[in-house]
Amino acid sequence: MGVMKTNQGTNRTKRIGVPAAEEILGKEFKCLNHGFVRLVDYMGGDDRVVQAARVSYGKGTKTVSQDKDLIDYLYRNRHTSPFEHVLTEWHCKMPIFVARQWVRHRTARLNEVSGRYSVMKDEFYIPDVDEIRKQSKDNKQARGEELSLNEQEEVLDIFLQGQEKDSEDYHNLLDKGVAKELARINLPLSLYTEWYWNIDLHNLFHFLGLRMHSHAQKEIRVYANQMFEITKKLAPMSADAFQKYSLESLSLSNKDRQGIKRIFNGEDPQQVAEEIFINKVERNEFLAKLESF
Amino acid sequence: MGVMKTNQGTNRTKRIGVPAAEEILGKEFKCLNHGFVRLVDYMGGDDRVVQAARVSYGKGTKTVSQDKDLIDYLYRNRHTSPFEHVLTEWHCKMPIFVARQWVRHRTARLNEVSGRYSVMKDEFYIPDVDEIRKQSKDNKQARGEELSLNEQEEVLDIFLQGQEKDSEDYHNLLDKGVAKELARINLPLSLYTEWYWNIDLHNLFHFLGLRMHSHAQKEIRVYANQMFEITKKLAPMSADAFQKYSLESLSLSNKDRQGIKRIFNGEDPQQVAEEIFINKVERNEFLAKLESF
Amino acid sequence: MGVMKTNQGTNRTKRIGVPAAEEILGKEFKCLNHGFVRLVDYMGGDDRVVQAARVSYGKGTKTVSQDKDLIDYLYRNRHTSPFEHVLTEWHCKMPIFVARQWVRHRTARLNEVSGRYSVMKDEFYIPDVDEIRKQSKDNKQARGEELSLNEQEEVLDIFLQGQEKDSEDYHNLLDKGVAKELARINLPLSLYTEWYWNIDLHNLFHFLGLRMHSHAQKEIRVYANQMFEITKKLAPMSADAFQKYSLESLSLSNKDRQGIKRIFNGEDPQQVAEEIFINKVERNEFLAKLESF
Amino acid sequence: MGVMKTNQGTNRTKRIGVPAAEEILGKEFKCLNHGFVRLVDYMGGDDRVVQAARVSYGKGTKTVSQDKDLIDYLYRNRHTSPFEHVLTEWHCKMPIFVARQWVRHRTARLNEVSGRYSVMKDEFYIPDVDEIRKQSKDNKQARGEELSLNEQEEVLDIFLQGQEKDSEDYHNLLDKGVAKELARINLPLSLYTEWYWNIDLHNLFHFLGLRMHSHAQKEIRVYANQMFEITKKLAPMSADAFQKYSLESLSLSNKDRQGIKRIFNGEDPQQVAEEIFINKVERNEFLAKLESF
Repeated sequence: MGVMKTNQGTNRTKRIGVPAAEEILGKEFKCLNHGFVRLVDYMGGDDRVVQAARVSYGKGTKTVSQDKDLIDYLYRNRHTSPFEHVLTEWHCKMPIFVARQWVRHRTARLNEVSGRYSVMKDEFYIPDVDEIRKQSKDNKQARGEELSLNEQEEVLDIFLQGQEKDSEDYHNLLDKGVAKELARINLPLSLYTEWYWNIDLHNLFHFLGLRMHSHAQKEIRVYANQMFEITKKLAPMSADAFQKYSLESLSLSNKDRQGIKRIFNGEDPQQVAEEIFINKVERNEFLAKLESF
Repeated sequence: MGVMKTNQGTNRTKRIGVPAAEEILGKEFKCLNHGFVRLVDYMGGDDRVVQAARVSYGKGTKTVSQDKDLIDYLYRNRHTSPFEHVLTEWHCKMPIFVARQWVRHRTARLNEVSGRYSVMKDEFYIPDVDEIRKQSKDNKQARGEELSLNEQEEVLDIFLQGQEKDSEDYHNLLDKGVAKELARINLPLSLYTEWYWNIDLHNLFHFLGLRMHSHAQKEIRVYANQMFEITKKLAPMSADAFQKYSLESLSLSNKDRQGIKRIFNGEDPQQVAEEIFINKVERNEFLAKLESF
Repeated sequence: MGVMKTNQGTNRTKRIGVPAAEEILGKEFKCLNHGFVRLVDYMGGDDRVVQAARVSYGKGTKTVSQDKDLIDYLYRNRHTSPFEHVLTEWHCKMPIFVARQWVRHRTARLNEVSGRYSVMKDEFYIPDVDEIRKQSKDNKQARGEELSLNEQEEVLDIFLQGQEKDSEDYHNLLDKGVAKELARINLPLSLYTEWYWNIDLHNLFHFLGLRMHSHAQKEIRVYANQMFEITKKLAPMSADAFQKYSLESLSLSNKDRQGIKRIFNGEDPQQVAEEIFINKVERNEFLAKLESF
Repeated sequence: MGVMKTNQGTNRTKRIGVPAAEEILGKEFKCLNHGFVRLVDYMGGDDRVVQAARVSYGKGTKTVSQDKDLIDYLYRNRHTSPFEHVLTEWHCKMPIFVARQWVRHRTARLNEVSGRYSVMKDEFYIPDVDEIRKQSKDNKQARGEELSLNEQEEVLDIFLQGQEKDSEDYHNLLDKGVAKELARINLPLSLYTEWYWNIDLHNLFHFLGLRMHSHAQKEIRVYANQMFEITKKLAPMSADAFQKYSLESLSLSNKDRQGIKRIFNGEDPQQVAEEIFINKVERNEFLAKLESF
């Protein structure tokens, strides 16, 4: 045919290759009860980041010589364009409410299964029992303490029965000959969907930074965490730079710096915070930053 | 305060203004049973398109002198960048399955109501009775003939009962104290959501071209058609160029042109089509194009 | 090292591969007097387009079964997203005035050699003698007839002497110790620059469509034409669809269709054109379209 | 005409307006010897940021109630989407080497004067005498100490003579009838160009953050600084948040935090830095951060 098929044995190529990525290429990594992510293809790796960066510097650069140091330097100083030359293609399956958060990242390219063309599978998201939690008191958008075991069982039951009913209705409508695009409108946000998703390394890091964050909904964090593990295989140096200078870094305003200096010089944290930050939310954020020192 | 509030009387401005757009600014135009679109703000209009285009031409241009001719010329020749200097801000409310199609257009900026923060309103999409139709036989993704009145009533009933049940479950879960981000996972795709949506005129035309198309799902077409009417108020010359050279234009391949020439020269359409197009789908597309001459 | 270097022998991979692309991978294809393009890497090919499209259709599709027919169908009906899953990485060298036109395409990712870091090479664009032409009389932005041989020699001389002088000044300034970022400000637009450029297949076709067009400046067309030849190796079916349904297709407005019908039915072209098109530019465009039937 | 012209007296509008922005609307603010920036139009302001953010929160939010606190909160926590609903349109004139750095920001929309259509004006960038400096010793891409007054005069002379020669050649070629697109190829990078440039507030802040940075070339910093002043008029609260949480903020890695804690606890800065940072560049960056406490 003149075209080598994917994942059917191996082919020879002159392209940059990453053995650790080849090992997991195409493998499904399970997420939630029915979901998964798998790396389907990639272009480039740490080597490409270095190669793209060296074009900009031309023969004029020598000092930032080692690859790892160069990658660290680029990341630290927001020279993000070389990371855009590494591309990743993912196949993902997730509940629709997760997909709706995911798709807010507009710098990716995607093709999703369509409920207008295809009959959707009867697969719905059910949280683990210990994930069934109350509304958080501090955080308008998060979960707080667990419900009693009894309540958790009740909630689970409501979810399961609702999904069963929705599924029954859906198939009932299809049996009546109703158009697929209409029959599916009462399917729930917990229904699984899937897509091919294509993004460059710079924008993938941006996505991961927001979706691995403790404020992101637990269910999408599961995917982001798994994808970060896979990304470490593909581009270990870049992933390490992202971790050091983004994920685990802390952004300090002028006031934050003043406060930290005074506290490290012996003043009382609570008192300093109250003097510097009138706004309570910002004050609490400051005190949380203090913890990480 | 130093800041003029929107839609509270009028202010003086030195910006380009469009009286016909001012008249409808902020007005809700109803779409489907609970939805709407309204133009909340705009920047520029036909004048801006001309102004941006004339920068490129500098003092060297004189021939394409009239604004309307210039706008037509730009559109016809795919000089799309001047249209990107006109911006529109919309407030829209639509069912989630419509929102999911809409959000595929990545060149817009949006802020949507969040089910993690807010309790969702009990508003669901219910199709008009005569929109309840069978799966199309020719088109994998479309509606075909109507169901019997009896069946239509049954379908409507299934929709209404399902939505009632989903709503009950949702409020039941909220009453138990379940976190909002979790309580909402079984809400149906027919639930209404809303957002602020911001897009430039060039990309708006691209959106409208795809979503006013007969292949787009009926429910999103209702929105696109309404938005096109509003766009005509804001930038009538540009909207007219879009209509003439995009919406109502026809793209003809080499083979299409050969076929049309032979048919207009007296040969039998069906026979010509069969000789030129082996692929049946393309052949039918060709015959449909012929209709528009 | 754990990382396979590019273009140093071949590696084994499980990724989709395209033998015809492997053959030319990394090869420089000369453009203009000192420039080139070379395909450095790719991800996917026609197979990926099909794979991404089939995700959307799920198991519901059977009729559009063959890959080539599917790709043609997708292209014809503006289902462009599957083409976005094929990625290409290019290394290009071109005069700055060409680079300035090229960079207007914002959907690509690029890293360019920097005159702030590096001493620029003494390489300048010189047109072939028969490319030295007069300003076109019809087209404000194009070349027309040739100059006399004598004049062409004079022009060439002006170019060469100017470039020599600019180069001398540049090195003179560097010798004085002037910062590179300042020493380079009088270098001419004919100076060669180079970059790594990364774009998906859909946006590459868009770029090629505009830059292979007869209205594009001759010098950038040389690059676009060469890149199209390379793209045919990488994704022959997709490139063929682009050629048939975009490059060689014709867009006809309502009025165009009326005119063509009347003319094919025996009326006089010139007279029909004058009756239908008041605007002279549009009338001439119509008559040009007529030629292609 | 039905269309209100810009900058010709004032019109009534129901749109959000910002009096401080109206005052400077259309005014040229001089940059470098021949350049300028002017705000031509805007859509929204701080009020729009708040309005767009409140859509996401719906009626569920009360605590982050004041506009300023909300804007600060959004900025601090990277909720960047509400800032994308404020749009700005600029008219700018700058040397081509500045334009080439500027255009790397791909999230803007632009129309530039074209040397293919128009005869370029004889306006070239000449640096102020005290800006004529040597190559920096520490920084591969920057200026260092001044040259002697004598050398500065020599450099200035080289620039002026080169530009005069280039201009002469250009007009000479035009007089011979050479096509404009060809006659301009030896014009220098110091030639002024101009464009209409359109960007949302979030991406404008990103642009300003990179181009006001001390590592950016001096000439583009002049523009960025001026645009920041104008932005403060348009959206003072948002600009203040950008300044506090981005411009003047500091990003600290894990290692940075360890080092700062030890130093504030009394250890020797130099010694701590050497123990923690093997890489000299990162070590110096750390010591520079220390200064800002």
